[in-house]
Amino acid sequence: MDKLGVWLIGARGSVATTAIVGAAAIKAGAASPRGCVSESAGFPGQLVPLTDLVFGGHDIAETSLRKRAEQLGRAEVISPDLPGLLASDLEAADAEIRPGHVPGGGPAATRLIDDITGFRARHGLARVVVINVSSTEPPVDPRPEFERLADLEERLAAGDDVLPPSSLYAYAAFHAGCGYVEFTPSTGPTLPALAELAARRGVPYAGRDGKTGETLVKSALAPMFADRALRVRSWSGLNLLGGGDGATLADPAARSSKQLSKDQVVTKVLGEPVEGETHIDYVPDLGEWKTAWDHVSFEGFLGVRMTLQFTWQGCDSALAAPLVLDLARLVARAHEKGRHGVLPELGYFFKSPLGTDEHALAAQYARLRAFAEELS
Amino acid sequence: MDKLGVWLIGARGSVATTAIVGAAAIKAGAASPRGCVSESAGFPGQLVPLTDLVFGGHDIAETSLRKRAEQLGRAEVISPDLPGLLASDLEAADAEIRPGHVPGGGPAATRLIDDITGFRARHGLARVVVINVSSTEPPVDPRPEFERLADLEERLAAGDDVLPPSSLYAYAAFHAGCGYVEFTPSTGPTLPALAELAARRGVPYAGRDGKTGETLVKSALAPMFADRALRVRSWSGLNLLGGGDGATLADPAARSSKQLSKDQVVTKVLGEPVEGETHIDYVPDLGEWKTAWDHVSFEGFLGVRMTLQFTWQGCDSALAAPLVLDLARLVARAHEKGRHGVLPELGYFFKSPLGTDEHALAAQYARLRAFAEELS
Amino acid sequence: MDKLGVWLIGARGSVATTAIVGAAAIKAGAASPRGCVSESAGFPGQLVPLTDLVFGGHDIAETSLRKRAEQLGRAEVISPDLPGLLASDLEAADAEIRPGHVPGGGPAATRLIDDITGFRARHGLARVVVINVSSTEPPVDPRPEFERLADLEERLAAGDDVLPPSSLYAYAAFHAGCGYVEFTPSTGPTLPALAELAARRGVPYAGRDGKTGETLVKSALAPMFADRALRVRSWSGLNLLGGGDGATLADPAARSSKQLSKDQVVTKVLGEPVEGETHIDYVPDLGEWKTAWDHVSFEGFLGVRMTLQFTWQGCDSALAAPLVLDLARLVARAHEKGRHGVLPELGYFFKSPLGTDEHALAAQYARLRAFAEELS
Amino acid sequence: MDKLGVWLIGARGSVATTAIVGAAAIKAGAASPRGCVSESAGFPGQLVPLTDLVFGGHDIAETSLRKRAEQLGRAEVISPDLPGLLASDLEAADAEIRPGHVPGGGPAATRLIDDITGFRARHGLARVVVINVSSTEPPVDPRPEFERLADLEERLAAGDDVLPPSSLYAYAAFHAGCGYVEFTPSTGPTLPALAELAARRGVPYAGRDGKTGETLVKSALAPMFADRALRVRSWSGLNLLGGGDGATLADPAARSSKQLSKDQVVTKVLGEPVEGETHIDYVPDLGEWKTAWDHVSFEGFLGVRMTLQFTWQGCDSALAAPLVLDLARLVARAHEKGRHGVLPELGYFFKSPLGTDEHALAAQYARLRAFAEELS
Ligand SMILES: NC(=O)c1ccc[n+]([C@@H]2O[C@H](COP(=O)([O-])OP(=O)(O)OC[C@H]3O[C@@H](n4cnc5c(N)ncnc54)[C@H](O)[C@@H]3O)[C@@H](O)[C@H]2O)c1
Ligand SMILES: NC(=O)c1ccc[n+]([C@@H]2O[C@H](COP(=O)([O-])OP(=O)(O)OC[C@H]3O[C@@H](n4cnc5c(N)ncnc54)[C@H](O)[C@@H]3O)[C@@H](O)[C@H]2O)c1
Ligand SMILES: NC(=O)c1ccc[n+]([C@@H]2O[C@H](COP(=O)([O-])OP(=O)(O)OC[C@H]3O[C@@H](n4cnc5c(N)ncnc54)[C@H](O)[C@@H]3O)[C@@H](O)[C@H]2O)c1
Ligand SMILES: NC(=O)c1ccc[n+]([C@@H]2O[C@H](COP(=O)([O-])OP(=O)(O)OC[C@H]3O[C@@H](n4cnc5c(N)ncnc54)[C@H](O)[C@@H]3O)[C@@H](O)[C@H]2O)c1
Ligand code: NA
Ligand code: NA
Repeated sequence: MDKLGVWLIGARGSVATTAIVGAAAIKAGAASPRGCVSESAGFPGQLVPLTDLVFGGHDIAETSLRKRAEQLGRAEVISPDLPGLLASDLEAADAEIRPGHVPGGGPAATRLIDDITGFRARHGLARVVVINVSSTEPPVDPRPEFERLADLEERLAAGDDVLPPSSLYAYAAFHAGCGYVEFTPSTGPTLPALAELAARRGVPYAGRDGKTGETLVKSALAPMFADRALRVRSWSGLNLLGGGDGATLADPAARSSKQLSKDQVVTKVLGEPVEGETHIDYVPDLGEWKTAWDHVSFEGFLGVRMTLQFTWQGCDSALAAPLVLDLARLVARAHEKGRHGVLPELGYFFKSPLGTDEHALAAQYARLRAFAEELS
Repeated sequence: MDKLGVWLIGARGSVATTAIVGAAAIKAGAASPRGCVSESAGFPGQLVPLTDLVFGGHDIAETSLRKRAEQLGRAEVISPDLPGLLASDLEAADAEIRPGHVPGGGPAATRLIDDITGFRARHGLARVVVINVSSTEPPVDPRPEFERLADLEERLAAGDDVLPPSSLYAYAAFHAGCGYVEFTPSTGPTLPALAELAARRGVPYAGRDGKTGETLVKSALAPMFADRALRVRSWSGLNLLGGGDGATLADPAARSSKQLSKDQVVTKVLGEPVEGETHIDYVPDLGEWKTAWDHVSFEGFLGVRMTLQFTWQGCDSALAAPLVLDLARLVARAHEKGRHGVLPELGYFFKSPLGTDEHALAAQYARLRAFAEELS
Repeated sequence: MDKLGVWLIGARGSVATTAIVGAAAIKAGAASPRGCVSESAGFPGQLVPLTDLVFGGHDIAETSLRKRAEQLGRAEVISPDLPGLLASDLEAADAEIRPGHVPGGGPAATRLIDDITGFRARHGLARVVVINVSSTEPPVDPRPEFERLADLEERLAAGDDVLPPSSLYAYAAFHAGCGYVEFTPSTGPTLPALAELAARRGVPYAGRDGKTGETLVKSALAPMFADRALRVRSWSGLNLLGGGDGATLADPAARSSKQLSKDQVVTKVLGEPVEGETHIDYVPDLGEWKTAWDHVSFEGFLGVRMTLQFTWQGCDSALAAPLVLDLARLVARAHEKGRHGVLPELGYFFKSPLGTDEHALAAQYARLRAFAEELS
Repeated sequence: MDKLGVWLIGARGSVATTAIVGAAAIKAGAASPRGCVSESAGFPGQLVPLTDLVFGGHDIAETSLRKRAEQLGRAEVISPDLPGLLASDLEAADAEIRPGHVPGGGPAATRLIDDITGFRARHGLARVVVINVSSTEPPVDPRPEFERLADLEERLAAGDDVLPPSSLYAYAAFHAGCGYVEFTPSTGPTLPALAELAARRGVPYAGRDGKTGETLVKSALAPMFADRALRVRSWSGLNLLGGGDGATLADPAARSSKQLSKDQVVTKVLGEPVEGETHIDYVPDLGEWKTAWDHVSFEGFLGVRMTLQFTWQGCDSALAAPLVLDLARLVARAHEKGRHGVLPELGYFFKSPLGTDEHALAAQYARLRAFAEELS
């Protein structure tokens, strides 16, 4: 089987580095694919082996992958001896990372497209999947040119920097004939003009915002209340997180993208809005670890009030990285099988699933399994 | 549609009293069927209306239902004004409660059967469902006569008190042509001789041990770990409970029935035994309320260890009572539609589902919905 | 011994109503003084008996105390049969509640003073203590006339409404020769001009912001870390509260007073600023109940990181009301013994203790005991 | 100032190894004395500098300290580079570890005494403090010879192995003229015959069972309830622990020593027995980490019920090791200043403080400070 190219936007970030280190460690026999959904016993789908992935990407940072990996070793995300052990694979990926596009940095679409197609050609890859794991952007205001591809291309041709970076990356991916995954809550491929482009190029895409922590647990628990006919009276939460992602989310504008993404699950599963907010706090001390506390007040028979609380202590990058590997392989296989446009079947992986309103975790998983079955 | 008889073993207990009060309150328009699974919007199945239930049962206690209801009012399980408001319905049910069978109390089968058939005749009921919500019994040792109905009946005819009360009640129910629900972790209908009897009489049954608190949450969360390929390293828990059920479980023998029942879920869903125990503590101070804390240690990508904890604060009787109403109606309808023997489709309601190994909550719910569809 | 007048600002609020109901219930022998610090076995200080308190106050609301008490009965703060049982005491207090001062409501000092002195005269009271338990105000900007009593009185005489209500109430109390307690985080007596007035009239005062929930626990735990030489790396919290106080704090301006008050404890006890924030969320569903979750990350020997979390589920009014009774009696006794000005010895009761930097709970308690000893 | 000898019983265990590594790391400038109570700013007492400690001890295990330290590095108790860095200090301590006494291993007192005095002589030490950090023993039944030193020595002289190991070590320590600290819940010096010996030899001792986790938090929180006149209705807990200590406590006999020790605090501080139990579970998966959950149900004004829960996630050895260093220095200084017999002033460090009934943490700390003041 052919190798698969994985092009990571934010390739030097925690999630990307963990994914690259992990794939290399699995290849080297130094780790199991624990946490990869598509590698669990009996999971269907003829997917590219994890050992056949080739990495590259864009980033605006310059720290080498080896250095980033060493930082993750100190932060107890990965074992401290892996960066040394996997040095040659990290260097190989490093050599394929190109400068990212900074908002307001002038016309860049052509260059980004060339970066991706060059990577594909250099490695003789049948397919590349572009995955955005760069810093979360603030939400953007609507613009007329977001609605139609012709209008958008006119503005881009005129040198106007109208797209937020995530959408420009999606534009470049589609143009290059690549599937795309929006793993962040940023705008990415969610503009009508970009859907038009994906359709025209026959490429699939999926998103939005990887579901790895508190929201994952929420989507496992909310259906329990709904099916048992228990009324959720309020659902409140506090997320404490450090790391690069935490630093980005310390900015209220970026945070608002994430909060919107988190707050959907409960409302959608329960079918009505519920009191309570989800707070996100940047606590540098926590490093790459995230702690979330949720408090659910609910009502049962004869109006009795009861409570469920949970505390989640997770390592975000370790939760996200295997999903990045899953998504690359699933999107590539869907592309190969001729699927294009949004892939609602991948909603299982996301906080704000595109193309579907299903947020209940088990239902999402059932749909994913059925999809993988079709792909095999 | 005909009225349905609900014959409760342990009819003066907290669960039974809450179920009887609740049904009366719903009939009186003083409460909604919150917590009744079969009453949630769009739930299929042509079930007897909640307003058409008639209650009776066995108990070894003598406190009147009105008094028990007043106690539950003080314990904040039900609103303190309901017992007065619903006095006539409580008295009507009270008049249909017969003395229960105390273990070692001599031959009783015939009397128990007569109690049930008399109730059915008096109220001109097409069907009665017998539901065991009496105190948990210790596990019993196997005996040869448990294996074959003929041997069992021989012993009973000889006046030998060989069955634990729950099994004697199941025997009486089946003999009387009634469906049976084992809502406790006791032996009940799980003896081969009784399965033989149920088959012969063409009656359905379901069980075992209503799933209302910690185990409910466990069965919602365990599949999340399994499907995400996260390895659960240990799962430990402490249950604090007061009330009559707590007092019974303060006895280590009775507690062992319950603990066995609780510990299955995680192992079955994860497909391997997991370190850690589930403790049950009797804390009279907590009254009818139960608090459970669970600690789950799990491993993700590259061996990273993470933790999920939850605290559940629930009112057990308020969680159990609506399920008792659900089960009565579902078993009656299955009986009417000609189903007999064990009903694995009702596994959703139980900690130790009979006739199935499925413990994942969402999968159980999907099976229940399909079953209800068939019944309609 | 003489009776003691307790004049409550916000006399129809939850805290005030609970205090009035409680004192009446204790007088009627229907309740014990559980939660009253000054009533615990062996507590010194010759204080007015709890049965000798007379209540009156100001409020801008008009709901009768009986109605408010009934609401608190439904909210499970007090037993639902108390309002009926104590009707005559509630009516007596109701008859002594006068219209409060709304900010911007024009000159009011004289009227407020007359209300208080009239109450004292009518009941032949030796002493009245004024306690502010009205809604939290936003912080105020400094003004030149806050600095000197003469300047302040000049402005008031000119009919200028320069003081926030809490400070106007403190002004009136001091003028009337009464001790004053600032139980809220509002400005109250903390202006230099008012300290001057208290000194001139020889009246004592204490404050600020009753310490009843999360902050109480914080002040018990923070010294543990300090004394054990464990370094607190971050301390984060989320407070969920409903009730009238919650509704007020839904306003960010009022909330900022409260947050300032809460955040001091950790910093003061640990002697250095610590990462992390304390969030306050209004969740109407929770009614008079408050739930707080705190997460403390700390470092021990050889840099090892550890975690302490706590969840507090308290009924705020039930925690505050007995302290109001304690404070009335302690301030009255201090007044009687000739103490005037700020009473730092009462810091035990407050989140932002006036006149002292001691926030460690046990140290505050030791100081309170010593003070009570002196008073006896 | 002279060097101080620290003779550790269980010298190859987790606590001992962490203490030895830590002292070496501090000496090497590779760590701060974080977690050492006696090193916090302003702590009085002219104590031997942490850099002047010499280590030796008894153990029945043979793994080298270097190997044990490496295990602790992998378990994330200490930084993995410390064992290499401090190799020579670890070897020096290793060379001073002698075979321990196995119960039933025949007469050993003389040999143990010689081991200790030999160590003192070899290093020219003015003083040695013996500290028991070996595995917890089961409680022992009373014996007549425990009551009088003469009777005990007669039995020992006759070659009878009547003492549990911890008490034999205490016997040897006292005989050798050394102070002794019982850091475990074992019997140790608590026999009247041994008190007699300590008095005769003029040596001080302290104990019992280092207070490092759940019990520490309990002793900080229980006084809060007592002083606020809140009635604790129940206090329940579950401790999950791995490590060598966990393995020992998996044995119900050893566990019973620990449970007794833990359960005292609440009763003693609150002055009355309280419902609820403290469970200890061995969960190997948790390694050197301990997680404890406590649930406190309490009652306030007018009988309102409220709840406090906490979760403690601590590294036991990292919490215990600095206290071992504190205790060595404090006992040595007390010895030097002529104190002998039990030292109740050190109750701050223990779950079952000898010679005092004070369990409230802040009161214990105040007493420790006063004691340290006296010693300086
Ligand atoms: N880790 C999780 O569990 C999880 C879950 C859902 C979503 N996410 C999202 O994944 C993203 C990455 O998270 P992380 O923890 O790796 O963050 P990170 O801060 O470690 O990495 C982000 C990387 O993006 C790079 N970057 C920033 N702007 C860029 C641009 N314009 N072009 C190219 N690269 C750019 C940064 O230089 C950095 O290397 C975040 O948006 C986060 O919200 C993560
Ligand atoms: N409440 C829940 O959430 C829940 C969940 C699962 C299972 N259960 C089970 O339901 C049962 C009832 O719980 P509860 O809280 O109502 O307990 P309870 O103690 O309040 O009631 C039990 C009743 O059974 C009666 N009884 C005892 N022995 C009997 C006998 N031999 N024959 C007839 N009656 C007898 C008792 O007199 C009492 O009235 C328990 O076995 C419990 O384990 C309850
Ligand atoms: N309950 C606690 O544990 C606690 C602890 C610390 C501080 N406090 C403070 O105590 C205060 C009262 O809390 P609550 O729960 O009783 O609130 P509440 O909303 O029930 O009562 C406040 C009362 O103040 C009245 N009020 C508002 N403005 C007024 C004015 N200008 N003059 C006179 N009355 C006025 C309102 O009409 C209302 O009756 C709040 O400021 C709160 O922050 C409470
Ligand atoms: N770590 C804490 O926070 C803490 C707190 C209070 C008490 N303690 C107590 O400290 C002790 C040590 O804990 P640990 O975690 O280091 O345990 P551990 O199992 O790692 O170490 C115990 C050591 O004692 C040795 N030992 C056993 N029997 C002996 C004997 N008869 N003579 C000499 N040595 C013997 C063992 O070989 C082992 O090396 C335990 O008793 C524990 O209960 C620990
Ligand atoms: Na942790
Ligand atoms: Na509660």
